[in-house]
Amino acid sequence: MSSVTASAADARAVGAARQRTADAYRSVRETTLRLAAPLAPEDTVAQSMPEASPVKWHLAHTTWFFEAFVLARDPAYRPPHPDWHYLFNSYYQSVGPMHARPQRGLLTRPTLDEVVAWRAHVDGCLLERLARDDGPALHALVRLGLNHEQQHQELLLTDVKHLFSIHPLRPAYREDLAAPPAGRATPLRFVPGETGVRTIGHAAEGEGFAFDCETPRHGVLLQPHALADRCATNAEFLEFVRDGGYRTPALWMAEGWDLVCREGWTRPLYWMEDEASEFTLGGVRALDPHAPVCHVSFFEADAFARWAGARLPTEAEWETRAARLPVRGNFLDDGLLHPAPAGAGEGPRQLFGDVWEWTSSPYVAYPGFRPLPGALGEYNGKFMCGQWVLRGGSCATPAGHVRATYRNFFHPAARWQFAGIRLAKDTAGQGPTAEQEGR
Amino acid sequence: MSSVTASAADARAVGAARQRTADAYRSVRETTLRLAAPLAPEDTVAQSMPEASPVKWHLAHTTWFFEAFVLARDPAYRPPHPDWHYLFNSYYQSVGPMHARPQRGLLTRPTLDEVVAWRAHVDGCLLERLARDDGPALHALVRLGLNHEQQHQELLLTDVKHLFSIHPLRPAYREDLAAPPAGRATPLRFVPGETGVRTIGHAAEGEGFAFDCETPRHGVLLQPHALADRCATNAEFLEFVRDGGYRTPALWMAEGWDLVCREGWTRPLYWMEDEASEFTLGGVRALDPHAPVCHVSFFEADAFARWAGARLPTEAEWETRAARLPVRGNFLDDGLLHPAPAGAGEGPRQLFGDVWEWTSSPYVAYPGFRPLPGALGEYNGKFMCGQWVLRGGSCATPAGHVRATYRNFFHPAARWQFAGIRLAKDTAGQGPTAEQEGR
Amino acid sequence: MSSVTASAADARAVGAARQRTADAYRSVRETTLRLAAPLAPEDTVAQSMPEASPVKWHLAHTTWFFEAFVLARDPAYRPPHPDWHYLFNSYYQSVGPMHARPQRGLLTRPTLDEVVAWRAHVDGCLLERLARDDGPALHALVRLGLNHEQQHQELLLTDVKHLFSIHPLRPAYREDLAAPPAGRATPLRFVPGETGVRTIGHAAEGEGFAFDCETPRHGVLLQPHALADRCATNAEFLEFVRDGGYRTPALWMAEGWDLVCREGWTRPLYWMEDEASEFTLGGVRALDPHAPVCHVSFFEADAFARWAGARLPTEAEWETRAARLPVRGNFLDDGLLHPAPAGAGEGPRQLFGDVWEWTSSPYVAYPGFRPLPGALGEYNGKFMCGQWVLRGGSCATPAGHVRATYRNFFHPAARWQFAGIRLAKDTAGQGPTAEQEGR
Amino acid sequence: MSSVTASAADARAVGAARQRTADAYRSVRETTLRLAAPLAPEDTVAQSMPEASPVKWHLAHTTWFFEAFVLARDPAYRPPHPDWHYLFNSYYQSVGPMHARPQRGLLTRPTLDEVVAWRAHVDGCLLERLARDDGPALHALVRLGLNHEQQHQELLLTDVKHLFSIHPLRPAYREDLAAPPAGRATPLRFVPGETGVRTIGHAAEGEGFAFDCETPRHGVLLQPHALADRCATNAEFLEFVRDGGYRTPALWMAEGWDLVCREGWTRPLYWMEDEASEFTLGGVRALDPHAPVCHVSFFEADAFARWAGARLPTEAEWETRAARLPVRGNFLDDGLLHPAPAGAGEGPRQLFGDVWEWTSSPYVAYPGFRPLPGALGEYNGKFMCGQWVLRGGSCATPAGHVRATYRNFFHPAARWQFAGIRLAKDTAGQGPTAEQEGR
Repeated sequence: MSSVTASAADARAVGAARQRTADAYRSVRETTLRLAAPLAPEDTVAQSMPEASPVKWHLAHTTWFFEAFVLARDPAYRPPHPDWHYLFNSYYQSVGPMHARPQRGLLTRPTLDEVVAWRAHVDGCLLERLARDDGPALHALVRLGLNHEQQHQELLLTDVKHLFSIHPLRPAYREDLAAPPAGRATPLRFVPGETGVRTIGHAAEGEGFAFDCETPRHGVLLQPHALADRCATNAEFLEFVRDGGYRTPALWMAEGWDLVCREGWTRPLYWMEDEASEFTLGGVRALDPHAPVCHVSFFEADAFARWAGARLPTEAEWETRAARLPVRGNFLDDGLLHPAPAGAGEGPRQLFGDVWEWTSSPYVAYPGFRPLPGALGEYNGKFMCGQWVLRGGSCATPAGHVRATYRNFFHPAARWQFAGIRLAKDTAGQGPTAEQEGR
Repeated sequence: MSSVTASAADARAVGAARQRTADAYRSVRETTLRLAAPLAPEDTVAQSMPEASPVKWHLAHTTWFFEAFVLARDPAYRPPHPDWHYLFNSYYQSVGPMHARPQRGLLTRPTLDEVVAWRAHVDGCLLERLARDDGPALHALVRLGLNHEQQHQELLLTDVKHLFSIHPLRPAYREDLAAPPAGRATPLRFVPGETGVRTIGHAAEGEGFAFDCETPRHGVLLQPHALADRCATNAEFLEFVRDGGYRTPALWMAEGWDLVCREGWTRPLYWMEDEASEFTLGGVRALDPHAPVCHVSFFEADAFARWAGARLPTEAEWETRAARLPVRGNFLDDGLLHPAPAGAGEGPRQLFGDVWEWTSSPYVAYPGFRPLPGALGEYNGKFMCGQWVLRGGSCATPAGHVRATYRNFFHPAARWQFAGIRLAKDTAGQGPTAEQEGR
Repeated sequence: MSSVTASAADARAVGAARQRTADAYRSVRETTLRLAAPLAPEDTVAQSMPEASPVKWHLAHTTWFFEAFVLARDPAYRPPHPDWHYLFNSYYQSVGPMHARPQRGLLTRPTLDEVVAWRAHVDGCLLERLARDDGPALHALVRLGLNHEQQHQELLLTDVKHLFSIHPLRPAYREDLAAPPAGRATPLRFVPGETGVRTIGHAAEGEGFAFDCETPRHGVLLQPHALADRCATNAEFLEFVRDGGYRTPALWMAEGWDLVCREGWTRPLYWMEDEASEFTLGGVRALDPHAPVCHVSFFEADAFARWAGARLPTEAEWETRAARLPVRGNFLDDGLLHPAPAGAGEGPRQLFGDVWEWTSSPYVAYPGFRPLPGALGEYNGKFMCGQWVLRGGSCATPAGHVRATYRNFFHPAARWQFAGIRLAKDTAGQGPTAEQEGR
Repeated sequence: MSSVTASAADARAVGAARQRTADAYRSVRETTLRLAAPLAPEDTVAQSMPEASPVKWHLAHTTWFFEAFVLARDPAYRPPHPDWHYLFNSYYQSVGPMHARPQRGLLTRPTLDEVVAWRAHVDGCLLERLARDDGPALHALVRLGLNHEQQHQELLLTDVKHLFSIHPLRPAYREDLAAPPAGRATPLRFVPGETGVRTIGHAAEGEGFAFDCETPRHGVLLQPHALADRCATNAEFLEFVRDGGYRTPALWMAEGWDLVCREGWTRPLYWMEDEASEFTLGGVRALDPHAPVCHVSFFEADAFARWAGARLPTEAEWETRAARLPVRGNFLDDGLLHPAPAGAGEGPRQLFGDVWEWTSSPYVAYPGFRPLPGALGEYNGKFMCGQWVLRGGSCATPAGHVRATYRNFFHPAARWQFAGIRLAKDTAGQGPTAEQEGR
């Protein structure tokens, strides 16, 4: 092939890559606005708890991210509202000071319209930048920004769900939300997993996008174990409740038991008092006994597992299994915004979508972990203390955002995420030791 | 005069009274909406602190008041949104349970438009009711509701001022707000007050509207004293600041000194760090040294008075003097929304308008006080503990709302009201005793 | 009389005064030690709540008072433990910085023995000082110090009672404490009080010791009223409890109702759950229905009065009546350390001793009040905000410490003092006004 | 050997085992009392923070442990003070309700003398029980109780050190405490560790006492790494401080940075403001630059490691190395009660004694972990959330208590333990993966 032809092909490839990034940009940004569309301006202001953020803040913060980390790389760029940076920086100490997190609900200005206009301005500049710069650094940053925005799409939904759940009138996010399809949960089965040294984590190079905390790819030693073939259901969790699960300290971590007593927990966050209905993004609806239990904390997941004579999976056990499965499931794009019963089938199902699955793994650095350089190094690494890993994505996670190596993380007391439970079990009294490994 | 003529005159009188109430109703209700007009829907949602309320809540609560206390007297009345009563009852335990006060900022629903529509509905019903019922009970309740709404007009302004003051960008409530006229404060003079037994309080019957806490009219014994002829100015308060007022515990009540230390108070609430500008409803502006100092707590007023070798007036001293003056001053209707320098003149000025004046009187029941019967008895009486009386109205008080007998009250730590300082002094070593009174 | 004789008489008078002060000093100081005697060293360390202090701290603080305000006036005096001043200064900002009040229970050093040794050292120095200095200033300071120590004697008892009351085993301060004598409360009668201008307060000069807050003597205007002839009894308060007093918000100040709900109040502080026994300094004992109800807050006293169709007396009403009665009652010296039923008799009884009586008067300065000069001015004046006056002394008040003009004060939520209730009533619809007073 | 002889030998063996347990019992119990001996009764009452306990409580709780878990197994046993169980149960929900932890400082009763008498009573009963029962269950429980008591010996010292450290006069626990010997820290070297699958944990059977959380023995996969050959010194930590370590958010976990800001941390807990002296159990002393830095939180250890371009070791890395070393070091029995400089030498030193070493491992269950049955299962398992593992023992750990498999754990914010820092490093870019392991 002549070099002329080759460079034409290169140019076409570059053009295609550009086009893909620009298309992805347009699509993700548009989705965020679409998620905010059912809300009144008033709904976008309030912050129901320090851990949650107002919808308007999510819209602005994701825009700030592109302005601060992409557009501002060009010294000629003039931000239209430089004093908004203070308002919408979340936690990047290296970028500058920021507004106190628990006060986000007091930022009535800029208004929703002003934020939306800012989004449009930044979108224009960013697409224009993409059109003239095909450097891989720019594309990598934009992709990071889009993955970041997808995380906030899910948070936007969980935060507005929480806000509406504590409103005495319990308004629906969308009155017209379709109910998930009916289904019957099959009897729970445990499926053996792999044993011995396996490799997990993301190789980063050439395998598509991943967050820094998913890297490096590294060996782990798996003990003999089995994983439940589907998530625990509302019916199963109701058994736990009726068996006195919330009144039996021996089932709980000490810190979890303190919370049960102090907060008066007696059921998952959004179950109503009748234990037969629950608050959803479509308002209060009947509780589907076959659907995965959802909106439980790590403490509840862990206590339930202990009550069931099981345990939660480690993240390595989970990932080793998930790596062999296609990334398919009930995601945001399915439009249900609620977990649905697992389909029938052989082997582990429902690993992706429906509900994030609490693991027994604290969120810590993988061996050899290196955070991103500069301010973006604050994205993940500094939270590797006191949080637990969840895997697999939920009905509020954008399709394509999640993968087998993906590590989500939350405090063990957090309940407002779409988080559920997959059980696991030890299958032999003694795991592999150095001796058995032949050393 | 024949009885025919008489009853025609009666009918005319009744008609005129009806008309006056209806006119007042329209005017007050319209004013409230006008005060909310400069705000975006987003601005009307947020609650900056537990003591403040969102503007939207003020609009709704004042409407609830008319619906719960006037319209609901007719058993045939069907409230269009009965479940909003829980949201917008402030503190009337007898009327039913209510939403927790510090959570008002989370009530994004009903939206501003919905609240405004509810206002219109209630207004229609209420004017219709006024047109067919001329009983004095109805008119008394409506007048109470209007005075209640006028109190919330002032709170609406002070609450939105506080909300904007803590916004990092310090937005103005009205960019177009005119500055108060310039003026020069005359040197402070103390004017002797009356001594001996005097009568204060409202007679309730036949003297126009008053709140229950202003009654009954009763005797008080005044000690020899003198009142400052105008309010203390920013310049005078700045002297206190520069003289170390905020660093001298001996000047302060113990509880006030704790606040100074804990909150780091070093100047009035809305003074900027340069001590030469202040946050106003028109944004940050130069501090007028001749204008009354404003947005100080009782603790600051009391410490300033002690530093000045003076004291705060008792409410009886204040009222005895004010009763002889016309109720004129810089009120809400003047449109400045900011205190202005006292005019020149003889004798005590500025008793009405500009700033509420902290007195040395705790807010307690007058001798023989009887609260209103029923739920309305909760209006004032149950707050007669831990609060202090302020007198005279402010630049945010509707003209016509205030009078010499009017008792406003706030916690001694409150700073977000338009509250200032008038000094007083003892003028003899020994006050009148029973012996001197001739017993 | 010759001048020789006269000066001999003077010398004798001075000697007698000296002797009286020295005797009083010895007696008061010894009483404090005697009150601490039933306690183990361990008991003297703990602080059960920020409002209370450890017994060891009381012993040391009262000693510090004499060292700081009396002995230190002599520049030659060398305090044996100068670094203890920081530990045992209570709240005198002018004297120097101090240890944080809520941390007093962590001051295990100096030990009880060391504190007692310090007391002995200071006593020796002080008596020696008294022997050589007969200036009135010294004697006045010593008298102030003794009255201060008597206040701490009562606090020592109330603080240790609280400490033991929250111990799961509810130990007795004195197992050998005799029970109060039985008695039958007579039916409650209201006795008319005086009306018109009367004089209250202490003249300070020549009438014996008084705290600065009792001065100056000044006129007050009394409205027509009547006082209950004895304190409210446990039986009467039990009626209030059984009638739902603690469940009826209309009876309560708003702040009191918040406390009822938040703290779960359902009965006086030391009543046991059976409402038939109570915790006393002698351990848990049967509740005497005829004895005065005790350990109630202002809020409970006020709610009870409202429920009873009465009110609390003003401090002026109380003092005007008490001034005509001998200061006799069940005091600390009687050794019961518990209120006893009122004796039979005509007219108001039980004004002194048994229980402090909550008044309806906030604790504020009398007209013309001047605090003591210097650091001692912090003794009372700076607390004149947010507290209420109690009158008459209790079964834990040293006899001779209290008088008709004596003003005790506590926060309205305080329950751990020996505080009870005397009811009062308005007796005419309208009090005296200036017109009726003949002006 | 004849069976006669055999059973005689058995009997001798049993007798010797009995004797060993009884001797250990006497020795451990006596040591606890010896540790309390320098304190006044007053010192044994106070609780300086919720995480700490009063010395008297430690003395009683360790006695309760033997009574509840050993003596009470005999239904004929009559506890002399059954109502003390409520007071001195720490957290065993299965055993019954318990006194609130933060209120332990209010338990002035029983007195120190009464607690010591109780100890003697329980000791008598327990030794008598040991003399007649040679079942392995009894001996195992007693050994558990003794190891439990040894943990409280260290806590007794750290708790009293904290109590005295916040006393304004900073009293010494022992004025006569000898200073640690001088020494020079050698330059820090990193020593390579083992790589690949290794085995850690305690086999439980036949290898002497271990806590349940040290089991089971299991395989781990070690990445290429190196360990510092000694602990980080005060001099090294001072460099971190002077280099702005406490002012650089990028070095910290987010939660740690919040603490730095909120608590105003600028140096290790017991360093004085001059950064040249520190508070010790012997009072304030010069800071030895060569001694290990001590009383740092996990957050500080982690930030220091990041600043040093290193990391903390995993517990598996630490244990693999420590398993090859004798358990020797500066322990409680050495009597210094303070860390001392590392001696010179080859290879990693100071793994045992001086300071506990923070690892990068969250405290979670080993694979296949089974808690002890019954109430003793609450000993460790329920704390496996939110805490971090420390290894190696300290200068306040009894010799013989600690071993290579020993897992101590504390919250990452805890600073009052004798906790220090050993650095570690990755030594290859990529650890072993399944591929490299030959799969």
